[in-house]
Amino acid sequence: MTFDATLAGIAKQAWDVMEEIGHLTGTKQAGITRPCYGEGEQLAAERVTAFARDLGLALQPDRYGNLHVIVPGSDPQARAIMTGSHLDSVPGGGNYDGLAGVMAGLAVAAAALRSGGHRRGIHAVAMRGEESPWFGTAYVGSRLMLGHSTLAEISGLRRIDSGRTLQDHLDDLGLADAPEMPISRDTVAGFLELHIEQGPLLTAAALPVGIATDIRGNIRYPEARCLGEYGHSAALPRAFRHDAVLAVAELALAFERFWEETEQRDPSCVFTMGKFGTDPATHAMTKVPGEVRFSFNVGSIREDVIAEADALLARLLDSIAQRRGVRFEMGPRFGSMPSHLDAALVAAVEGAAGALGIGCTHLATVGHDAAMFHQAGIPASVILVRNANGSHNPAESMTEADFVRGARVLGGAALRAAA
Amino acid sequence: MTFDATLAGIAKQAWDVMEEIGHLTGTKQAGITRPCYGEGEQLAAERVTAFARDLGLALQPDRYGNLHVIVPGSDPQARAIMTGSHLDSVPGGGNYDGLAGVMAGLAVAAAALRSGGHRRGIHAVAMRGEESPWFGTAYVGSRLMLGHSTLAEISGLRRIDSGRTLQDHLDDLGLADAPEMPISRDTVAGFLELHIEQGPLLTAAALPVGIATDIRGNIRYPEARCLGEYGHSAALPRAFRHDAVLAVAELALAFERFWEETEQRDPSCVFTMGKFGTDPATHAMTKVPGEVRFSFNVGSIREDVIAEADALLARLLDSIAQRRGVRFEMGPRFGSMPSHLDAALVAAVEGAAGALGIGCTHLATVGHDAAMFHQAGIPASVILVRNANGSHNPAESMTEADFVRGARVLGGAALRAAA
Repeated sequence: MTFDATLAGIAKQAWDVMEEIGHLTGTKQAGITRPCYGEGEQLAAERVTAFARDLGLALQPDRYGNLHVIVPGSDPQARAIMTGSHLDSVPGGGNYDGLAGVMAGLAVAAAALRSGGHRRGIHAVAMRGEESPWFGTAYVGSRLMLGHSTLAEISGLRRIDSGRTLQDHLDDLGLADAPEMPISRDTVAGFLELHIEQGPLLTAAALPVGIATDIRGNIRYPEARCLGEYGHSAALPRAFRHDAVLAVAELALAFERFWEETEQRDPSCVFTMGKFGTDPATHAMTKVPGEVRFSFNVGSIREDVIAEADALLARLLDSIAQRRGVRFEMGPRFGSMPSHLDAALVAAVEGAAGALGIGCTHLATVGHDAAMFHQAGIPASVILVRNANGSHNPAESMTEADFVRGARVLGGAALRAAA
Repeated sequence: MTFDATLAGIAKQAWDVMEEIGHLTGTKQAGITRPCYGEGEQLAAERVTAFARDLGLALQPDRYGNLHVIVPGSDPQARAIMTGSHLDSVPGGGNYDGLAGVMAGLAVAAAALRSGGHRRGIHAVAMRGEESPWFGTAYVGSRLMLGHSTLAEISGLRRIDSGRTLQDHLDDLGLADAPEMPISRDTVAGFLELHIEQGPLLTAAALPVGIATDIRGNIRYPEARCLGEYGHSAALPRAFRHDAVLAVAELALAFERFWEETEQRDPSCVFTMGKFGTDPATHAMTKVPGEVRFSFNVGSIREDVIAEADALLARLLDSIAQRRGVRFEMGPRFGSMPSHLDAALVAAVEGAAGALGIGCTHLATVGHDAAMFHQAGIPASVILVRNANGSHNPAESMTEADFVRGARVLGGAALRAAA
């Protein structure tokens, strides 16, 4: 049996396991919840470990809870080709964002184990905590594994739902004695990640698979505040008000206009204020709102657009604060510069898809774990799988057929890169 | 001793009791919380009842928990002059909004008891649940007492903090056998309410007392929703989004523009979106927001401005929904038409202030319990007392001297009206 046929068979089994994990960590209505270093993520880790064992692969946790297995190639000196994605989900998200890449990576490693013939080792990985809502910052597992942050630097971050620190949650996993298994360009020649598309573009193009060419950079403030002044809703004239809702609404609409003006020359530009809230303990219909908590998130694959957005944000915060007599406390800033993905790996993916007769197109993508590999100087590429309903919501969808197609493209590209 | 000197002395005692109630129902930092038919309101009712007893006044609760006492006048056939305000507060509000009018009304009744000489009876009242945050609707006590609503109509409303019904909370007070004591134009000749000013205009004018000439009408939606669609913050292009935050932000800023354009010809116009929130259980920095809950509140003393605001709201909801692919569920609507207060009572207040040498000015005001009396065909007037920091917030402020001034104007006006 060819590598591709072997892989297609294993990918179908992987699909069934993935559906089972979905049922264990969520419902259709409420969506999937797998918190970073929490119950749902750990349950997925255990089920994935058991499935890998059935495939003859012994997954090894590193000190940060990421799970690894390497299928050696014919040249023990050659750096490996790595593949995988993350186990966690946003709260109330979908089943495939992250997990599909873990399962496809394992299927590729298992097919490589059976079919052999690759020069470089195939290194499959299941990572932790890629989603930012848990600790207010993304890529926890891959960032630690790749040395972008040390545990000492981020162990004090508190998980937003539990209020406990990253270290507390990591301690729950009992991995203090696990090996560190650092990953770098010295040991890995390339990283391939399969990921569900998080937008509707492949569905609109009627193609099952996309090849990411760029990862958006972004400017992110997950926990910003605007402080105005509470007052009586009827008795306080406009000139005396410091209304935090109107101040943040002005910021939101000004950035929407920037987006409208920018998207012609930069279709990758995006803007979202996903969180916007007055304080339920204090607000009322009859009070001028004195405080709003909000998140701010602008992205683009173009450095000049990111820089423009940054300058606009500074100008607006200043002028809104001055005109309205409010104060902005933007809180911690996260984000990254845009990344162009590795041309040789993009070509390998494109070649594999072409050879398999699976239609695909080029797309920009968002900051997956692959961005962390790219930033570590490791060539990286992302294979996107069609999804009609967007990601980070319970309606996120993937068909088994598209998953198998994506896994086959991933496997073909990995074999080319490992040759 | 004159009526005025007697009243000034009792008002000082009333001030001390009011401060004591403030300490019992809140703190400087968190403000005052006296929920409608809840612990803080009931505590105030009990302390007020004890104070009235010390003054020789036996307060009688009606079936809705409002407390009454009538000091008879020389003509038992004449309809009474009524005075008072409410015992409750908004969550985290100030001590004087409502309670100052209750205490001043009791002081006037007690002074009348000692000084006599009035033709009409003086009827003091302490009402319940004037503030809307508790049951999503204002004037609970006065509305029931004046027959604008029946208990059957509103007993099922749920208190927002407790989730229990109005009937449940009323049952806690054990008043099923209390008399109904309905109030109407057949028994009451006029209603005078002392109330803290809820804006900064008296402070700006350096005057201790204001006379309300009009009560703003308003259009109010305490629990509106905008439903968009959740999606991925980076992967979803603008054309595919249905962003609820941007939709409600557009509504807010459009009404702010309307306000700016209107305030020249109508300085009484006000607009507030005091509540604005994405769902903390579902929102994230990395999700397009699919839902916003908000409140909407426009007021004016002019019927034409209320009508214009209403038409603008309808147009905007329609066009925003269509353009952005979102849906508005505005929920229950509350509000009232503007009221011109009784000219004869306004003159009585003005005459009393003039005779006492206490500076005052005309103002518009917001919908106090007096609005319910006005709507029942009972001549009504409101005396406002200076407050540097606005109302519905912990910093709300009143000096003892201004309270005593306000109570003396109230008493003088009541005697004139009761002559």
